[in-house]
Amino acid sequence: MRIRAFNLETRGPDDVEGVRRLLDRGTIQAHDVIAVIGKTEGNGGRNDFTRPLAIMAFERLLAPRLGVDPAAVHDRVVLSFSGGTEGVVTPHVVVLCREGTALAERRTAKRLAVGIGHTRALRPEEIGRMPQVEETARVVREVAGTLGLDGLSDVHLVQLKGAIPPFSAADAAAAERRGVPLRCDMAGSRGASALGVALALGEVERAALSDAAIGHDFSLYSSVASCSAKPGLERTEVVVFANSPRFTGDLVIDHGVLRDILDVDGIRAVARRLGLPIPIKGDDGSLVAVFAKSEADPRGAVRGRRHTMLGDDDVGDTRYSRCVLASVLAATLGDTRVYVSTRAEHHGPLGGGPLSIIARVGDDGRA
Amino acid sequence: MRIRAFNLETRGPDDVEGVRRLLDRGTIQAHDVIAVIGKTEGNGGRNDFTRPLAIMAFERLLAPRLGVDPAAVHDRVVLSFSGGTEGVVTPHVVVLCREGTALAERRTAKRLAVGIGHTRALRPEEIGRMPQVEETARVVREVAGTLGLDGLSDVHLVQLKGAIPPFSAADAAAAERRGVPLRCDMAGSRGASALGVALALGEVERAALSDAAIGHDFSLYSSVASCSAKPGLERTEVVVFANSPRFTGDLVIDHGVLRDILDVDGIRAVARRLGLPIPIKGDDGSLVAVFAKSEADPRGAVRGRRHTMLGDDDVGDTRYSRCVLASVLAATLGDTRVYVSTRAEHHGPLGGGPLSIIARVGDDGRA
Amino acid sequence: MRIRAFNLETRGPDDVEGVRRLLDRGTIQAHDVIAVIGKTEGNGGRNDFTRPLAIMAFERLLAPRLGVDPAAVHDRVVLSFSGGTEGVVTPHVVVLCREGTALAERRTAKRLAVGIGHTRALRPEEIGRMPQVEETARVVREVAGTLGLDGLSDVHLVQLKGAIPPFSAADAAAAERRGVPLRCDMAGSRGASALGVALALGEVERAALSDAAIGHDFSLYSSVASCSAKPGLERTEVVVFANSPRFTGDLVIDHGVLRDILDVDGIRAVARRLGLPIPIKGDDGSLVAVFAKSEADPRGAVRGRRHTMLGDDDVGDTRYSRCVLASVLAATLGDTRVYVSTRAEHHGPLGGGPLSIIARVGDDGRA
Amino acid sequence: MRIRAFNLETRGPDDVEGVRRLLDRGTIQAHDVIAVIGKTEGNGGRNDFTRPLAIMAFERLLAPRLGVDPAAVHDRVVLSFSGGTEGVVTPHVVVLCREGTALAERRTAKRLAVGIGHTRALRPEEIGRMPQVEETARVVREVAGTLGLDGLSDVHLVQLKGAIPPFSAADAAAAERRGVPLRCDMAGSRGASALGVALALGEVERAALSDAAIGHDFSLYSSVASCSAKPGLERTEVVVFANSPRFTGDLVIDHGVLRDILDVDGIRAVARRLGLPIPIKGDDGSLVAVFAKSEADPRGAVRGRRHTMLGDDDVGDTRYSRCVLASVLAATLGDTRVYVSTRAEHHGPLGGGPLSIIARVGDDGRA
Repeated sequence: MRIRAFNLETRGPDDVEGVRRLLDRGTIQAHDVIAVIGKTEGNGGRNDFTRPLAIMAFERLLAPRLGVDPAAVHDRVVLSFSGGTEGVVTPHVVVLCREGTALAERRTAKRLAVGIGHTRALRPEEIGRMPQVEETARVVREVAGTLGLDGLSDVHLVQLKGAIPPFSAADAAAAERRGVPLRCDMAGSRGASALGVALALGEVERAALSDAAIGHDFSLYSSVASCSAKPGLERTEVVVFANSPRFTGDLVIDHGVLRDILDVDGIRAVARRLGLPIPIKGDDGSLVAVFAKSEADPRGAVRGRRHTMLGDDDVGDTRYSRCVLASVLAATLGDTRVYVSTRAEHHGPLGGGPLSIIARVGDDGRA
Repeated sequence: MRIRAFNLETRGPDDVEGVRRLLDRGTIQAHDVIAVIGKTEGNGGRNDFTRPLAIMAFERLLAPRLGVDPAAVHDRVVLSFSGGTEGVVTPHVVVLCREGTALAERRTAKRLAVGIGHTRALRPEEIGRMPQVEETARVVREVAGTLGLDGLSDVHLVQLKGAIPPFSAADAAAAERRGVPLRCDMAGSRGASALGVALALGEVERAALSDAAIGHDFSLYSSVASCSAKPGLERTEVVVFANSPRFTGDLVIDHGVLRDILDVDGIRAVARRLGLPIPIKGDDGSLVAVFAKSEADPRGAVRGRRHTMLGDDDVGDTRYSRCVLASVLAATLGDTRVYVSTRAEHHGPLGGGPLSIIARVGDDGRA
Repeated sequence: MRIRAFNLETRGPDDVEGVRRLLDRGTIQAHDVIAVIGKTEGNGGRNDFTRPLAIMAFERLLAPRLGVDPAAVHDRVVLSFSGGTEGVVTPHVVVLCREGTALAERRTAKRLAVGIGHTRALRPEEIGRMPQVEETARVVREVAGTLGLDGLSDVHLVQLKGAIPPFSAADAAAAERRGVPLRCDMAGSRGASALGVALALGEVERAALSDAAIGHDFSLYSSVASCSAKPGLERTEVVVFANSPRFTGDLVIDHGVLRDILDVDGIRAVARRLGLPIPIKGDDGSLVAVFAKSEADPRGAVRGRRHTMLGDDDVGDTRYSRCVLASVLAATLGDTRVYVSTRAEHHGPLGGGPLSIIARVGDDGRA
Repeated sequence: MRIRAFNLETRGPDDVEGVRRLLDRGTIQAHDVIAVIGKTEGNGGRNDFTRPLAIMAFERLLAPRLGVDPAAVHDRVVLSFSGGTEGVVTPHVVVLCREGTALAERRTAKRLAVGIGHTRALRPEEIGRMPQVEETARVVREVAGTLGLDGLSDVHLVQLKGAIPPFSAADAAAAERRGVPLRCDMAGSRGASALGVALALGEVERAALSDAAIGHDFSLYSSVASCSAKPGLERTEVVVFANSPRFTGDLVIDHGVLRDILDVDGIRAVARRLGLPIPIKGDDGSLVAVFAKSEADPRGAVRGRRHTMLGDDDVGDTRYSRCVLASVLAATLGDTRVYVSTRAEHHGPLGGGPLSIIARVGDDGRA
């Protein structure tokens, strides 16, 4: 079994031509596609309609090839889009295919493995609290368990779309009266998702976690989580990326932590471990995908000096913070096809965040 | 004679407290202040009112200390502000003081020299055309001539605020009828200013220049110009920065060209020539000021890959392109007090631009 | 033959539930749907992806019901969306159905008739010039001719999506060299479309029209056109709304001209002619659809006083001018489901624009 | 004693030319100026620097004429600017002068009276709570008491700039621990200011007010308050507008409540009571100043239909809601010099707000 990944530029959120070509030429098979993860040129906010547009376009592309109704495609393929390509970022999609059958024997060389799962349906009162953390952790471990890993330290990225189940104003009022007000919002779901990953992978101790710590104690964090959240979603969607001795192919993943959004050394460290010759000159295919998560430092300063991202009522801080980190990644790595997502509660240290890179390697496991 | 420079963070466009403190403590004298150049947290566009606010605040600060009316301060001090501190940029002002008297003898060690001048009043029909180029060139050479330089290759930055004299609709119509439509706008004034610098310093040949080339042939450019323009201004304001054997002090300036807004190598080359240990750790005072000029590549791509800056109707391309280059500069140099200005007609190669850095050096001339 | 119209609020650009319900309940038949015209909550600009999202959603809804491929739906149904619901505007779609067969005899009472057509494929050099004007006029007259009208003065709205055929940089350069530079852009296509309507309906004389007049002489205009344009579209799409003695039903349309975007009297005049009791209290169904076109007065003033819409680099003038007119329409008419589109070259007098209203009437032809 | 008012268009936030002319010609005397209230073309948000710019410009204008330091002008004159002239609003300043001496006798005809006062310095823990309400009420009554009114029902506008005294993170944490978290922010200060006015004028009962009601029970409101708030301000600034039998002149004020931001009938009712012939045709000087306060209905709908103002991450709801009401006011009254301010906690009913109009009247007291 092997994972193949294709990083394709798009000309718009509904541009599926690159994938269509791969399918039409037989380079990939529709039934092998397990995920399409992309950056679209929206604002990344509440009124970012580039995400449903991209999803609908891929559903239209894949439905007839999978022999299902468009609305059923997402049962078969994770379609995950993040809006916001501020600055130099090139809108792109990373298409992940899982091909072949499981290896009976472990190999010495570990290669990229990807697994997918879902939590049970979560209730509004569980979101942003320990039940969400624990259910998320359970699923992360469960999915990781299917990948034949040597250990959880081989997990280098967990991409989650967190549940935000619907609730009524009456539900909210009742929770308020019970003294446990709902946290069933974007921040709550993202934060608990990230801590769920951290718990699953042993990045934090179970004893350190509590409802009170979620959204408050930011010394607790994951270095491999990349969590978004989606209003109306009932089950958190989990994609685990790891290096497995039971997967073949030529892809490897690694990760690191950025201490702030200017952390060139942190970026280089991950690239160096992968053997990536950065900055990439030309396009040798060695750099396959880059995923980072961060935000404008909520303390209003970076490296001790004031920034103005949090006080601008014309342009949101998420747009600028994405632009900053993406620019530094693109300049350091030499590729503008970088995926940076914002709002990073419990994702890396305050003002910083996790970074994961997938590279194409030779037989020696080096890019 | 020496130049001293202070790079001061501000808490708002009207924050003059840092300079007030220097004056009140006697660290600097009001009569020695020749220029205040700053970045303010505006949008950098037509409705950026942070610039007049900063100017008015500095006029109020300096007027009683210079014994003149507030409206007369700008006859004595260049007050030049650029809006736009997108991303991590820290709003700041660089205060330049010229102290002491001219050296009779040339010294071996060259140090930062700054001179100021103005063109004659320009007429609307001259803007964006050769008369503006030639008058600008004349003044640049004239000011450079006062600095006792070994040669024009010691000029490393020419900061200009270009004239855009007022004109009536009738003037414009008459020019249209004569077949030489007015170019008396921001782009025209900036482009001709930059080519004026290029002509003065021998960066382009006189024979290569023509009205037709201005705004069209972008293979012609200056690598040291940094030109803005201001509607209503009748005389272009010129500030020349160079290294002179007739200046003392501990400051040196150098420059380079960035081939695009991700050009880490170009940034490092300038720092290396100055002996700057980058990225700066802590704040040892060796990095004094950073000035760059650039824009979103008008061809819609950076390093062969699409960017979306030119097609976003919610946020202008100048805001994002400033953010990109400033992020790369801040990450590479280790300081968020960087001055990046946009719209860069004839400033460096298309999609790139000039970079100048002032550093504090030891007796060996190295930072 | 009759036209039925449904004005349905939407909860998002991809919300087709209202129409699905009408179809599922048998209230309307998919084969009778001739057009869906809507306002979506985008920015109305180049990066407004709410329009393709709405189109894709309606294609997915209608394709299986029409028995065609999603991509073929637009051959059967005009799907036309305009972004921008600034202020109080409620996102909505107007669904138009044409039912029954043509009347042999003319009736005394005229009722709403709607016809659809397309120009031939237009070439880039024709756009924004007389060939586009004349071909548009030809098709408007042709479509109007199918509606059994008493005369062209019974046409009260012509909604067009103007062609902007693709061309290469070489095409543009060649046109430039021939001395007839391409006008193949939004402004060119919209302006020539509007003048095509004006020519068809006798609002302007053929002799007054010329390539030079298009985009310059704004005393020439249509009072019933509502034109957008779409890059990549090769044939202009034409929808003609009129009152016909050969149509039955309970809908009537009328129009008027607004002299500026605050023209309450102009709005009232149209409502009065239709017998509409405005402002509507409650929702009696008498006001069916409102279409207006306008823009921020390019002279920088409304009724002699300065406005700031044209100099704001944070928010575009189209967003504010839509907001202004939509607010005045909603307040005057008492309904927030109003369709206001901007950029109005040759649409009504400078700073003003056309207004059309569809009302539900009794047997006396009065709302 | 009489109040004179001048409504002057401005060409920018720092345009003081209109007032300078009035002063230079002797039309008004600097010592008579009690307030300058204006709308400037900023975003009305945290980074709106048009307000300090306007203030600094008026301080520079008035300081030498008052014989005081620029920084001392605000001790003598209320300088109050509100950013946001979205849509058709013309930036303008209303200059208020108080001339002559107090009348010993009451006259039958009541004319506009304006009085100014300040609360004591408020402490952070008082803001947004009953102490701020009560102190504000005390000062409103005190100032009203100086105007020789027949009763408090003759008060038609109370313009307040609410205190937001500075506090440390430690102060905030301590308050949190005490169980009475600080409400020392914009919303808290505005809401308590408005309820202070309501209490002073008998619009709400003292018994109905409590810390719990502030910011929650929006059935409690003032119909004459117009409150902003300013971080760093220690004392709330209060300007009371009323009709007094002890004032002469030709100005009268009246007010009303708008039930929503489309309430044409509510606008007309106020104009009718003043005898204003609306919409104003030409500029007969009868309409002197218009002040309104409102916001995007927080329930997400206006008159039962969805609006999108609260979910747009590109443009804030305050910008659009100001645009809507200002458009409706300008269209209904026939003048684009209208002052609309947003965020309207406890200002009129939810989704609506107060409206005050100053008119110039004849001897019969009618405009």
